[in-house]
Amino acid sequence: MFRSHTCGELRLHHANTEVKLAGWVQTIRKFGSISFVDLRDRYGITQLLFGEALTTELDANPLGREFVLQVSGTVTERSNKNTNIPTGDIEINVQSFQVLNKSAVPPFTIQDDTDGGDDLRMKYRYLDLRRHAVKKNLELRYAVNRATRDYLHQQDFMDIETPFLIKSTPEGARDFVVPSRMNPGEFYALPQSPQTFKQLLMVSGYDRYYQIVKCFRDEDLRADRQPEFTQIDCEMAFVEQEDILNMFEGLVKYIFKEVKAIDYNAPVERMTWENAMWHFGNDKPDIRFDMKIANLKSAFMKAGAIVATGELINDAGFGIFEQAETVLAIAVPGAADYTRKQIDELTDWVRRPQIGMQGMVYIKVNQDGTYKSSVDKFYSEEKLKTIANAALAAKGDLVLILAGKEERTRKAISELRLELGQRLGLRNPQEFRLLWVVDFPLFEYDEDGNRWVARHHPFTSPKPDQIETMISNDPSIANASEYLKHPYSNIKANAYDMVLNGNEVGGGSIRIYQRALQEKMFAALGMSPEEARHKFGFLLGAFEYGAPPHGGIAFGLDRLCSILGGTESIRDFIAFPKNNSGRDVMLDAPSTIDEKQMEELHLVSKLK
Amino acid sequence: MFRSHTCGELRLHHANTEVKLAGWVQTIRKFGSISFVDLRDRYGITQLLFGEALTTELDANPLGREFVLQVSGTVTERSNKNTNIPTGDIEINVQSFQVLNKSAVPPFTIQDDTDGGDDLRMKYRYLDLRRHAVKKNLELRYAVNRATRDYLHQQDFMDIETPFLIKSTPEGARDFVVPSRMNPGEFYALPQSPQTFKQLLMVSGYDRYYQIVKCFRDEDLRADRQPEFTQIDCEMAFVEQEDILNMFEGLVKYIFKEVKAIDYNAPVERMTWENAMWHFGNDKPDIRFDMKIANLKSAFMKAGAIVATGELINDAGFGIFEQAETVLAIAVPGAADYTRKQIDELTDWVRRPQIGMQGMVYIKVNQDGTYKSSVDKFYSEEKLKTIANAALAAKGDLVLILAGKEERTRKAISELRLELGQRLGLRNPQEFRLLWVVDFPLFEYDEDGNRWVARHHPFTSPKPDQIETMISNDPSIANASEYLKHPYSNIKANAYDMVLNGNEVGGGSIRIYQRALQEKMFAALGMSPEEARHKFGFLLGAFEYGAPPHGGIAFGLDRLCSILGGTESIRDFIAFPKNNSGRDVMLDAPSTIDEKQMEELHLVSKLK
Repeated sequence: MFRSHTCGELRLHHANTEVKLAGWVQTIRKFGSISFVDLRDRYGITQLLFGEALTTELDANPLGREFVLQVSGTVTERSNKNTNIPTGDIEINVQSFQVLNKSAVPPFTIQDDTDGGDDLRMKYRYLDLRRHAVKKNLELRYAVNRATRDYLHQQDFMDIETPFLIKSTPEGARDFVVPSRMNPGEFYALPQSPQTFKQLLMVSGYDRYYQIVKCFRDEDLRADRQPEFTQIDCEMAFVEQEDILNMFEGLVKYIFKEVKAIDYNAPVERMTWENAMWHFGNDKPDIRFDMKIANLKSAFMKAGAIVATGELINDAGFGIFEQAETVLAIAVPGAADYTRKQIDELTDWVRRPQIGMQGMVYIKVNQDGTYKSSVDKFYSEEKLKTIANAALAAKGDLVLILAGKEERTRKAISELRLELGQRLGLRNPQEFRLLWVVDFPLFEYDEDGNRWVARHHPFTSPKPDQIETMISNDPSIANASEYLKHPYSNIKANAYDMVLNGNEVGGGSIRIYQRALQEKMFAALGMSPEEARHKFGFLLGAFEYGAPPHGGIAFGLDRLCSILGGTESIRDFIAFPKNNSGRDVMLDAPSTIDEKQMEELHLVSKLK
Repeated sequence: MFRSHTCGELRLHHANTEVKLAGWVQTIRKFGSISFVDLRDRYGITQLLFGEALTTELDANPLGREFVLQVSGTVTERSNKNTNIPTGDIEINVQSFQVLNKSAVPPFTIQDDTDGGDDLRMKYRYLDLRRHAVKKNLELRYAVNRATRDYLHQQDFMDIETPFLIKSTPEGARDFVVPSRMNPGEFYALPQSPQTFKQLLMVSGYDRYYQIVKCFRDEDLRADRQPEFTQIDCEMAFVEQEDILNMFEGLVKYIFKEVKAIDYNAPVERMTWENAMWHFGNDKPDIRFDMKIANLKSAFMKAGAIVATGELINDAGFGIFEQAETVLAIAVPGAADYTRKQIDELTDWVRRPQIGMQGMVYIKVNQDGTYKSSVDKFYSEEKLKTIANAALAAKGDLVLILAGKEERTRKAISELRLELGQRLGLRNPQEFRLLWVVDFPLFEYDEDGNRWVARHHPFTSPKPDQIETMISNDPSIANASEYLKHPYSNIKANAYDMVLNGNEVGGGSIRIYQRALQEKMFAALGMSPEEARHKFGFLLGAFEYGAPPHGGIAFGLDRLCSILGGTESIRDFIAFPKNNSGRDVMLDAPSTIDEKQMEELHLVSKLK
């Protein structure tokens, strides 16, 4: 061993002990004829004192930042204690030292507030990983990993490894493929998830399975998507939705407790997908703050106290509202005193191409009971009051209204709500609010193919009372324009998403376990029986031999860690991430391969 | 929940409790007007009693083996207790039942002694996995996984995930590659091990890293090799070889204790590579039994009591021995009474092409002190005695002697020793003997390239006192026939293998952490400086910025589990293994992919 202790463990009671330490030079400070060096390792920082003779040696052969240093010496009490670090009561009176390795000057400073840009830090990721800010992210990730395994073990789950070289069955996302040299012309695929394997394990009777496992998707990368990502992947047999929700809110609460020392004792709220879309404009609402969306035009709003209908805004001569498919409002708390400039800036914000609105209407609900609006020439104060009430606005609130096509307007007001929540400090990264979103539609309509696509995946079961609807109806859509009248459009999935602070951190479903229902599902997705057998014959086969009812969930570990760490950037929680083009700039990968390798794989590149 | 209890948990004290169970029908036995069903799940088997009315129902709609059944009923004490199973004191008096899913008749019986052949069981792996014999293997694997994580966590190791889509740097084995759609013409590689990443993590100061991780090698598969396999991968900073050996024999002993309830308190023996080759004929000796190899011709045997030299066998007119490069002997304990037929059979055994010997000589050391040999017309009884003594034979032993070319003969006698150990019952699969083999040669000579190849891998350090030899000498070999005189041929690696019952279960080394030494290593392997920078520039770069001394080890999890499970077939310890052609016969993978996928990857197959 190059050391007797780490740089984080010495305390006052070690005084007068002879110790050997090894680590990295963090700082060097010379005071007259003596020098102080802060020595750093994973566990902490310890101050080293070099006396006169050794300082003379250092003058001849100076240390530099990030040098690897080994010292022997005596633990002594510091006259000038540092209460900011656990080792601050002591220092090492160095008797001898050895430079184990030198270091060039790092291309950026190894500090929390580094001067290194993103690209530079990615190229020298091994230096970036030295920074405390990155290290604590990876420590958090390990703590989440550890807590997950402990909880699931206590609950009788077994970690079972599933294969990485599997069969390509493109459904939804693109597979990464791996040419097989031993089976020329054929390819393996890397798993997008171990979905079918975990289902087979349920058929095999393993009852409770989990794995913390890499998955792969060859998608066009958006910011903060990685081609390889990690899932906490779980499956249980003989369960209904309620069992899964209980088991896995237990998991997340256990993680809160172990990793963040947070007692999350409150029950986890549940919301139907319909209510999420209705009140929050998206399927992963951030419920740390309210600011629910009011629908000023539809007659469907039943949940709130006020039934808002078109009457609120029609027949006032304001064509934009009258002609719009949808008119949606939110009440921004305490924002009635926004200046003209502030409101103009918000209007510009919703006009940005990413949001895509034409404009924005406001109603100020003043403290004195009066109303001021950008459309008060169309609407009487009485009307404005009714509209503001519909948006549940209180005195001092600012009602913001967007109008336009249904989907775009709903998305826009959802974004506006989140933006205002952010600006108003309602999205505290250290406050955690969990939510189950349930009762998703089983199918979405695909206009191009005039067919159904699975909203979750093709293995998700419909609600038990809708299985019959699914089995007894022909999935084909005779009249494209009337797809909403097809019985399949109303089938709800036995599926659930776990949402944390407005991010989907997990999702799953109760699965189909009956061959006939699974075949119907494949048919609904436009697969011929031959194609279904070719791609998923093993699963259909397995369902012949006593498949139990089962269901599961998968959590995105990268995302979960980033939210627990108080950010939404998953890259900071991955040791060696890839950039937005899927490149590892440190390795310089991907790269070309030898002609010989291509030949062994019987492949030719079509590129010049 | 479909059940209130599992099929493994009910005991006598549950009597009179109303319960709900779910599981698979293992057996159905009808006795007159009542029926007994054994219901099975992962946790055990519970007997169900169907009374007269329910039996009538069953007659109308018979159950079958592997049906998925849910029953409600009362726990009652059995009159006829079964002491073989933990639930044998009770049965369930069934009040109602529901068939959750039917099962076709399985293609083989779901029992320990199944009637299914290998191919059939692989095709229906999801049924094979139901067999208790397979289930207990996967349970053992999970227990090893769990014990490993616990021990390493206690020792401050951190699980850090390394990437799967990396850069192809073929050294030794072939990489599996993954075409990149977003970087046309370029490929990722799947890792053969996370070697360079774990080293970078040491440079980054993570101090103690581990991962239980899939690795990939595109090799021609021998029996019991898998293209994807799992490693327990570990690395430590600021350590010497001694530290690693202590840490990881601790790990394996912890696994013995947790998984097998074995207190392995004995110190783990250590043996140099040279002694392993000398006394056991291979670098992974099975030391559960002795039967050491005696070298009858070489003057180099110093370790044993007797110095054997050519004098023993030369000048006797037996040309085969005199002309042979090597003559090696073992003394088979208590085998002096082998019949002519038995000895002929052993002779045939060494003549098989896999062993490749021309013949075998024997000396019987009879109980009465006489000697009988197949070569007694050449050797006097005195000479035979001297030879038998050299082989450390006792009265009643049978000395077997092989002669021929050095490498083949050594391999052959090693195989013969293992075969006889097996036949004599000296290789008890429930006895576990660990061994560290140390001091491997750093290089092997590659005749084709007239260059050195790394015996372990290019990141292994030489012994500290040989670093200077390596740095100060030119690695190139001027005279191919005299490569043994090159100073590099005597350099020993700072490397170690852990051997369990004659199987290498782990291996590792102290790594190079100095850029100059690493560059010298790449040069020795025939890499130009440009090539080294292209392939491993990130690592050489990392060594510029304060790389600490470090080393590590990787255990083959599949192999370790199989030996702990008492077999040497790793496939039985993998949930979804591939066959010897690298195929998953259940999935039918690999398979062809769509033309569209090929086009997106800019690839064309050269096959018709």
